[in-house]
Formats: sequence, structure tokens, C-alpha cells
Amino acid sequence: MRASILTIGNEILSGRIINTNASFIASKLYSLGFKVNHILTVADKATDIINALDYITADTDIVVTTGGLGPTSDDISKKVISNYFGRELIFKDEIAHYLKNKFGTTDFSESMKSQAMVPAGGEYFINKVGTAPGILVRSKNIMLFMLPGVPKEMKYLLEEEIIPYLTEHFDIEENIIFNLRTSTIPEIKIYNRIKELINKNDLKFVGFYPSYGVVDVRISGSKSEEGKLSKIRDLIKRELYDYIFEEGFRNLEEIIGERLRNKGAILSIAESITGGMIGGRITDVPGSSDYFSGGVVTYSNSSKIKILHVSEDTLEKYGAVSEETCSQMLSGVSTLFNTDCSIAVTGIAGPGGGTKKKPVGLVYIGVRAFDKSIIKRYNFSGNRNMIRERTVNYSIYLLLKLLEKAG
Amino acid sequence: MRASILTIGNEILSGRIINTNASFIASKLYSLGFKVNHILTVADKATDIINALDYITADTDIVVTTGGLGPTSDDISKKVISNYFGRELIFKDEIAHYLKNKFGTTDFSESMKSQAMVPAGGEYFINKVGTAPGILVRSKNIMLFMLPGVPKEMKYLLEEEIIPYLTEHFDIEENIIFNLRTSTIPEIKIYNRIKELINKNDLKFVGFYPSYGVVDVRISGSKSEEGKLSKIRDLIKRELYDYIFEEGFRNLEEIIGERLRNKGAILSIAESITGGMIGGRITDVPGSSDYFSGGVVTYSNSSKIKILHVSEDTLEKYGAVSEETCSQMLSGVSTLFNTDCSIAVTGIAGPGGGTKKKPVGLVYIGVRAFDKSIIKRYNFSGNRNMIRERTVNYSIYLLLKLLEKAG
Repeated sequence: MRASILTIGNEILSGRIINTNASFIASKLYSLGFKVNHILTVADKATDIINALDYITADTDIVVTTGGLGPTSDDISKKVISNYFGRELIFKDEIAHYLKNKFGTTDFSESMKSQAMVPAGGEYFINKVGTAPGILVRSKNIMLFMLPGVPKEMKYLLEEEIIPYLTEHFDIEENIIFNLRTSTIPEIKIYNRIKELINKNDLKFVGFYPSYGVVDVRISGSKSEEGKLSKIRDLIKRELYDYIFEEGFRNLEEIIGERLRNKGAILSIAESITGGMIGGRITDVPGSSDYFSGGVVTYSNSSKIKILHVSEDTLEKYGAVSEETCSQMLSGVSTLFNTDCSIAVTGIAGPGGGTKKKPVGLVYIGVRAFDKSIIKRYNFSGNRNMIRERTVNYSIYLLLKLLEKAG
Repeated sequence: MRASILTIGNEILSGRIINTNASFIASKLYSLGFKVNHILTVADKATDIINALDYITADTDIVVTTGGLGPTSDDISKKVISNYFGRELIFKDEIAHYLKNKFGTTDFSESMKSQAMVPAGGEYFINKVGTAPGILVRSKNIMLFMLPGVPKEMKYLLEEEIIPYLTEHFDIEENIIFNLRTSTIPEIKIYNRIKELINKNDLKFVGFYPSYGVVDVRISGSKSEEGKLSKIRDLIKRELYDYIFEEGFRNLEEIIGERLRNKGAILSIAESITGGMIGGRITDVPGSSDYFSGGVVTYSNSSKIKILHVSEDTLEKYGAVSEETCSQMLSGVSTLFNTDCSIAVTGIAGPGGGTKKKPVGLVYIGVRAFDKSIIKRYNFSGNRNMIRERTVNYSIYLLLKLLEKAG
């Protein structure tokens, strides 16, 4: 089964934004068993959209479009595409009703009305995280899905509506994907270890997806090769045992949340270099108030002293970025919030502030779980953002590992 | 002048990698004054490349391709494209010589030889950071540049060779962009106000780029229309005066940093609903320790009481999400960190925890600048992430506005 992705929007053509929507959709379609033939971006201009449809529909079974479904005048996708397939737009009460409820209004603006229009004979999928619904138009040989361009909304509709729909309507052989999520080990080290482990020919099934502090190792191929793929996965799992925190796609913050909840443990966090990012990440998870009491961002020395009772002597003797300060931040925040588990981080994110002895990228991470605690020292490379992101991921991962040992 | 980008490679179609090459090329071409009409990705398969060329060359002046120039068997771009334009491949001594020197060899492998082949009548650009040269084929109306897919090599050839070449050979006019960044007003409200303000025909110059809590209104067009574009910009600026925080592309956190620094003011933050995200954002900016002392994440009631001295009575009578609690968090954090400026936020991010009286999306934001302070109440729509992102952006914006009034 062949698929095409059509993203509509000037901001991609002018290079202002990177087309992450397309790669997200492509990877989802690929894992469903589709062969993606085209990824195309054109402007939100009628003739351009029509030419694009002529081109891609000559050689595909399904099309997924994103963008141009909003309520403003430059959002023309729905009109043009419906017209292309010879369909009128029809007002759907159910969508209107949903939007009215959502906005708590009885009054109906023109722009809201336009969101409730669907091509005749088409189907629609209510957008629970935004306003513009997803739309499906079927012609003789083609199914075309229209999705909004806002990534969160696109993802919601794709995962909750479109993929189940495709799975139901197509008899496709799924591709198999094993995803091993690792932390505290760089991509190049993983690659070198794996390269020696499995034979050269089998390396083609293995992909590496690095972000800052987390690297996904993905083994994928068609279902008919499941046996071989499982064998590769098991070899890699054994080799990378110390670094794997998830087989699947859950995030560090979801997994730490589950573990803390299961143990009835409560977490507190003392942040310096990350300025609150670790707390922000932990509380991304709904219900995190069950196991997260709070934290302190002690960006200045005076706040480290006053709130976390780091000693002035320690700061003077060892500096704010030191094992000693990190350790006192860790015990300080545990005491302040009276928690069993805590994280403390201090470091130099740069670009300024580094010295020869304490260069940019030097980070101390302390974690505590019940009666156990450790402080680790890292020299991260990269820019400010990369260093901070790594600190967030490493700190959560280290707590996860310590929690395991704490039984 | 119209441009198209054709990226050739299976790894983009399977979603394994994000097409950052295309956005890099697009932004460079756009700022040179080109209008990018297509960004297209197809597989490295002859028929797919030929169909793609038929499609894009119907409507463009220049094409930039990436990928498929390497020495391996699946790198077929050069052969297929040359063939498409009816050109034979010819061996170029200069390239061969360069590669021999580079590898310090007199011997010449087949794969090296293939790198030295250039379409008859074509030009080439030596690749000083890799092996495959960039290639230019001209036909009657079109210039087509082939670049390797390795980002570093593509960037080198584009910046050092292709852009100078284009600047020399085309009489192009640069594009003008005015970008107005707004906050605390939804896209749809902006649209409705602008729609009534400027005539329908001029709306085509205006684009809307919303994220959660910040909407960019962008006026862009060619340099010859500068007068008209400036007029539109001025009209919009007057209409949206209360919501604009930047003419350009700087972020809220950069601007608040600059203001705080200029006033010699120090900031502290008390976060509940955002869990540390505001502090994370403020400290994204290098040097933020100059004006950010720190913050407290009081996710639990007990931490609000213990650390910020919110009164138990208040929490019992009005609840954690109330104007009263927000106000006490604001004064509590100002006192704790002894700062002139502070932010305090409390709210319900959902999906659980909402009631009829206090629904998901209810957020109180308090800001204080010297002797002035205000508390605002919002009912945000959207999911957990959208509500939290809006809270971050709105809170920084509100402080920015209050700082202006504080003289």
C-alpha cells in the first residue's frame, strides 16, 4: 500500500519551520506497513494545491495532508481539496455542537462555522485537543485525510483516529518495531558496541534516534522477519542492559512517575543549572501531584544558603558547582520538603562562566532514594540547551536506577 | 524567481530522519529573494525521480536536489538526472586529481571514479568537506543544482558555492519580513480585528503563526512593495498595541531578561501548575543569573504553607487555585528571595482535578514589579500541555507590561 504526505504551508517553504509533522506521519505510516512515496510541501495557494494533488494521486493509495484547516483567510486547504474531488462543503451539526460546548457559547461566529463544514460524503474526526476536525474524503481509488498543522492536534488525530481507521480498513502487513530507550550513554558508544555484536548484514535493521541524553535504538523490519529481529533485539538488550530504561515509547518522566507511585515515594527537586526544567518535565505527567511535592530553583548563591542551607564555607571553598554543594542541596531539599526521594543538580551551562578547572558542561547530579544516595560528575559537550537537556534526562535516569537498587 | 527543493532518500520517507536539509536550503533561498514553490522528497528510484522532475520543472526556475550522490549502488541521482536532461556523464580530470590528492593515493577505485563523473556541459563545485562534488546542469529554462545529502557537505557547498553563484547569475530582489509578536490574545481575535482594519486584498501579505500563548503576525512580500508593507505593519501595530511585545524574532524570555537587566531588577518565581517551566524558560537565556535569583515549585499544599507561608485558612476557605492563594504565593516568594519582581501561578492543568466551579484551564497569574502588582484570572482551553504553555507565556508577558508601567 502506497502513501503520500502533503503538507501545506508557507512557513515550511520559507524555511521558518522544519517539517517535523511529515516525519512523524511518515514514521507512523511506515510502521503500519505503508510505503511512503512522496512527502511534498506546497504553498496554501489553490493552483499549487491542485497541481500537487494531480501529481501525487497518480501514484498512491492514501494521502495525508496537514495545514490550512484553521479559521483564518489563509487557511484554504479544505475548500480547495473538497473542490478538487467535486464535493460541496456541508455544515455538520455535531461539530458545531461540539465547538459550542467547548467554548461555552450559544453564539456562533463565521470562523467557528467554517470549522464545522465537511465535504459532502466525507467523514470527520472530532479534534479534542483543538478546534479543526480531521476530515476524510474518499474518491474511487484514494483515501485522503486532512489534518490540522498544529503538531499536537495532528498527532492526536493521527494516533487516536486515523491509524485505528487505517488498521480497520486496510489489510496491511505491519512492520515490526522494537524500540529500546537508553540514557547516560552516547550514540557513538552504542554504535561501536552494537557493530561488534551483530553481523554487518543485520545492521540494516537497526536505527539510532538520539536526542540530548536519551538515545533510542530501534530494530525494525517486516513481520516475516520477526524471528531475526527478536534475536537482534535480545542481543542488544543484553549488551546495553545498564542503560535501557524502556522497551517501547514511554518517556523517562512517565516511568519515574509510575515507579514512585508504586513505591508510595514522594519526590522533591533542587535545581540550579536547569532552572526548573526537571520539575517542568516531571509535572508534564497528569496526576504527578500524587508523588511530586515540589522543588526549589536556587539559581543564586544566596538562595542556596538561605533556602537549602548550603553552608557559606562550602560555597567559598568548593564553589557552587561542586560535589559538596550538590550533596548539600540534595540533603537540604529532602529536609525542606520532607521527602524520601530527591534530585539536586548544579553545573555550568555556558556559553559564559566556564574556567579551565570548571569548564562549560561540568555538571553534578545528586539523587537520593530512601537511605541511598549518589553524586555523579559529568562533562557534557554541546551548547547551553543540549547541556541542560542532558542534565534533565540523566538526573531522572539516575534516580530511576537508584530506586531499583533501593528495592 | 521560483525555486524547488528535491530531496532524494528513503530514510526521510520512512520517517527515520527529519528533513532538516530542506529547511536549511529553503531559508537560504528565501532570504536570497527566491520563492520556494515545492519541497519534495522521493525515493532513490529512477521512475520516482523522473516523475518528480516532470512535476517540479513545470513550475520553477531553479531546482536544488540533495542526496544520492554517494559512491554506493543505491546512489543513482546523478545518473538519472543527467539522463533526464539528455546528458552523458563525462570524466573530469580535475575532480579525480583532487580526490587522489585528498586520499593520498595514485590508485583509483571504481567508486572514486564515479565521483569524478559530471554531466556533459555541466559545471561542478569541488566538495572540500567530503568527496561528492556539487553539480550544476542547465537546460533551456532551468538551473538544477545537485548536492550531497550529508548535512555538513550540503551546507558547505550551498553557502560557499551555490549562493555566490546564484547571486552572481540572478538579478533577484530580497524579500522583506515584518514580524510582530503578540501575547495574551488568541489568533482568531487578532484575525477578526485585522480583517476589519485592512482591505481584503492586502490580507494576502499577512500570515499568522500561533503557538500556545504567543501569536506572530507576519507581514511579508517583495522589496518593491515595501511602502505598502510598512503601511500595513503600522496599521496592525496601532490596532494590536496592547499585545505586541516584539517587532522581530526575539522570545519573551530574552526581552524580559533585557528589561530586568536594564532596570537592575531581580526576579523570583513561585510555580504550582507549571512545575518549574517558567524558571526553565527564563534560564534558557545565557547570563540569566544576573537577574534571576530563583524560585519555588510548590506543587503540594504543605509546601505552599511551609515555604511560601500561604495561610492554612486561605487554602481551606478559597482553595489552592484562587486569587487569594496566588496573591500570598506572590508576596511569599518576594519575601523569601527578597526580590523586586516576582511571578506566581496556580491553576488546574487537567485532565483530572477540575470541578464545575473550578474547571480544568482555570489559572491565576500574579505578577509584581516594585510597588505594583496584579492578579489575573484566565480560563484557558486545550489540553494539559497547552494550558501550561499558555500560563508560562502569559505570565512573562504580564510581568513585561507591568514593568513598563512601573516606569
